[in-house]
Amino acid sequence: MPEFLPTAPYRGTRDFLPAEMSVRTQVFGKLYEVIERYGFQRYDGPILEPAEIYEAKSGEEIANQQLYTLTDRGGRRLALRPEMTPSVARMIAGNAGALQFPVRWYSHPNCHRYERPQRGRVREHWQINVDIFGSTSPNTEIEIFELIHDMLSGLGASEDMFVVRANDRNLLSSALTDVVGVTEQQLPEVFALVDRWEKYERDKLAASAEEIGLSGKQFDKLGEVLTAGTALLDELPEHVKESSNLVKVLGSSAADLVRFEPMIVRGLAYYTSTVFEVFDTSPENNRALFGGGAYSDLASMFTSQQIPGFGFGMGDVTLMDFLGTHDLLPKPKAEVDVVVIPVTEDLGDAARTVATALRRSGVRTSVPLEFRKLGKELTRADKAGARVVVIVGREDWDAGSVTVRSLATRDQRVVTVDSAPSTVAELLAD
Amino acid sequence: MPEFLPTAPYRGTRDFLPAEMSVRTQVFGKLYEVIERYGFQRYDGPILEPAEIYEAKSGEEIANQQLYTLTDRGGRRLALRPEMTPSVARMIAGNAGALQFPVRWYSHPNCHRYERPQRGRVREHWQINVDIFGSTSPNTEIEIFELIHDMLSGLGASEDMFVVRANDRNLLSSALTDVVGVTEQQLPEVFALVDRWEKYERDKLAASAEEIGLSGKQFDKLGEVLTAGTALLDELPEHVKESSNLVKVLGSSAADLVRFEPMIVRGLAYYTSTVFEVFDTSPENNRALFGGGAYSDLASMFTSQQIPGFGFGMGDVTLMDFLGTHDLLPKPKAEVDVVVIPVTEDLGDAARTVATALRRSGVRTSVPLEFRKLGKELTRADKAGARVVVIVGREDWDAGSVTVRSLATRDQRVVTVDSAPSTVAELLAD
Repeated sequence: MPEFLPTAPYRGTRDFLPAEMSVRTQVFGKLYEVIERYGFQRYDGPILEPAEIYEAKSGEEIANQQLYTLTDRGGRRLALRPEMTPSVARMIAGNAGALQFPVRWYSHPNCHRYERPQRGRVREHWQINVDIFGSTSPNTEIEIFELIHDMLSGLGASEDMFVVRANDRNLLSSALTDVVGVTEQQLPEVFALVDRWEKYERDKLAASAEEIGLSGKQFDKLGEVLTAGTALLDELPEHVKESSNLVKVLGSSAADLVRFEPMIVRGLAYYTSTVFEVFDTSPENNRALFGGGAYSDLASMFTSQQIPGFGFGMGDVTLMDFLGTHDLLPKPKAEVDVVVIPVTEDLGDAARTVATALRRSGVRTSVPLEFRKLGKELTRADKAGARVVVIVGREDWDAGSVTVRSLATRDQRVVTVDSAPSTVAELLAD
Repeated sequence: MPEFLPTAPYRGTRDFLPAEMSVRTQVFGKLYEVIERYGFQRYDGPILEPAEIYEAKSGEEIANQQLYTLTDRGGRRLALRPEMTPSVARMIAGNAGALQFPVRWYSHPNCHRYERPQRGRVREHWQINVDIFGSTSPNTEIEIFELIHDMLSGLGASEDMFVVRANDRNLLSSALTDVVGVTEQQLPEVFALVDRWEKYERDKLAASAEEIGLSGKQFDKLGEVLTAGTALLDELPEHVKESSNLVKVLGSSAADLVRFEPMIVRGLAYYTSTVFEVFDTSPENNRALFGGGAYSDLASMFTSQQIPGFGFGMGDVTLMDFLGTHDLLPKPKAEVDVVVIPVTEDLGDAARTVATALRRSGVRTSVPLEFRKLGKELTRADKAGARVVVIVGREDWDAGSVTVRSLATRDQRVVTVDSAPSTVAELLAD
């Protein structure tokens, strides 16, 4: 047994030290702001949920292998939420009578999955969830696509850095059956194959297609269909297109927000028509950043009321990778704006008085906790990112004054104690 | 088996619907702001931690009965953190070489304890943790006490609504041995008795004291000591007082921030000198809101480096009760500031264009997702808390104009599309 316990966090989870946390709060604070500008309201829920709400819906892989479960002392089987959708479905169902649909909701939960940690995958991640519940209008999809562009542009991304690749599962079903000649029974397996289309080599895809029972000709046709883009729409029956929201989006003034990509499927079971993935266009990081889609009946586990939804979940790990790749990560915020330094130890109370006045004026201000010489404190203040220091010396103080100094410009002024906050504000604005 | 799964959250946990969440984010957003004005930096850590870090330190009750534990597929025994201190000790120890002590850190984690839910007690709560690590100066205590007053006053509390009751365990030890005549062996049990002093009836306390082996006279003296306030200090030896930070605080210009109360002990094991509790002074809610104290060796589990700390944890449940009791809870924020309403369905794109311009100007703006008649939309906009609506009608639009209307004052103006944002800003400012 080691003498001391290890200091590393549990595998696949992360400590956020102040510098990392500052980046995280700046990025997500910006996202909250953009999301709320659309009238979305934030909600939150417990981390622990009854295990059965995941086992019923989230698909085999999560329920069987990736769920963290435990049994409480009352014998209740619980899980750490692996995603937010079942929780929000529970809340929406439980409060449907009091809600005025459609509602715009968002949240920022941490979610747990037991995964092998690797690039872009951790066991605890923070995920922004944005959804509109209670409307099947194509306007919901247009609004979500607009919001995604605004969120990424709010973080400094330009339109060439990402692309929203969207598909409608019903369009793909029609293309597969009507154009490729896939049978109803083969459909689920072909969907799974399409989901792997960009991840696997062509040989491996061909072998899978053969196993499913597709001919070589069908496999070639499948490849054409998946890469046809909007040209595919010409080959599909009118009644299929008419009932597709995505076709309406593509025919609207919002068409430039998305690119129609028939190969986008998304694994999770509950999407029922439109699905989309936001891709990083940079060669170094060419992959899905996040995605979402439409579900026709969100809360069927909890209520007979049919509640449709459209939305997405955006995880922090891939988002931060994207921002890093494009050099868009904000710098950590400085610890403080101002440090008030007493020149002698007996001036500690005086320094605290000045600091209190500065804080009341809204300035982030610290006072050294341990007494050190002025030179050392100036160095520390500089390291802490302070841009201004207020020096409290005995003679000045007895005369009712302090010295305010800009660490950037070296501009230095002796001012009355009362006017210190306004002088500090002036120097901070420089 | 029921047809539908229950929609209530797991017992002792809470859903935060938008109205509740808005109150929560406003209250804690204000607290973050006040805390950061002192130069504290936020950090965060994983919810899952190795179970042994709690079993070693947090005291019997938590480890044995209140900890949520699970074993992962790799056989690792984990716990949902019941408190933040062991996590932050782990982080501080793991990064001590890179930190410039003293450091001011804060966090806002959710913590889990398996408790019987009752007023003020839940199984998942959100706790603000504020600590200064790496200094034993009395200035750390003064700063924390100042901060507590600023935090509560930032939430609207006046000084008569709460009191910070502080003690030093070493002063109490000295009073018990030197004044009451308690033996070294009796000390732990007498501390436990003191911890229950305000919760139990006098008869029960007397019975406990007798069991410990105190005489009736000693029990009476104990009662005097615990309620003596600062008068107790006169009875204590100089060398004990000289080494007490709390005595220094009480002798400083910050003395009015705390009240010396020899009966404050706090249960948790790791406090080593000063301990304090913030009490609500209202008769309806007269109890500890939160508390904290000093630990001389925070991270002894993880490192041989002795790192002192001083700080507190403030839970959301008792805080919200306090704010509710004193009528200080903020109102939930309105969903949006402005709704842009198309008068006919074909004006949806036009409405979206106006909404985009408004959002860019920083105004929270929504557009109806489903088309409804103007009257109905005006009612909905009012319910959503919008103060201004922009009405997009066909004739106006063709002439390059829209109608901007204040829902409060009924002030209504037809303006050009380009000047809509400035008109909206004007009406919102009214």
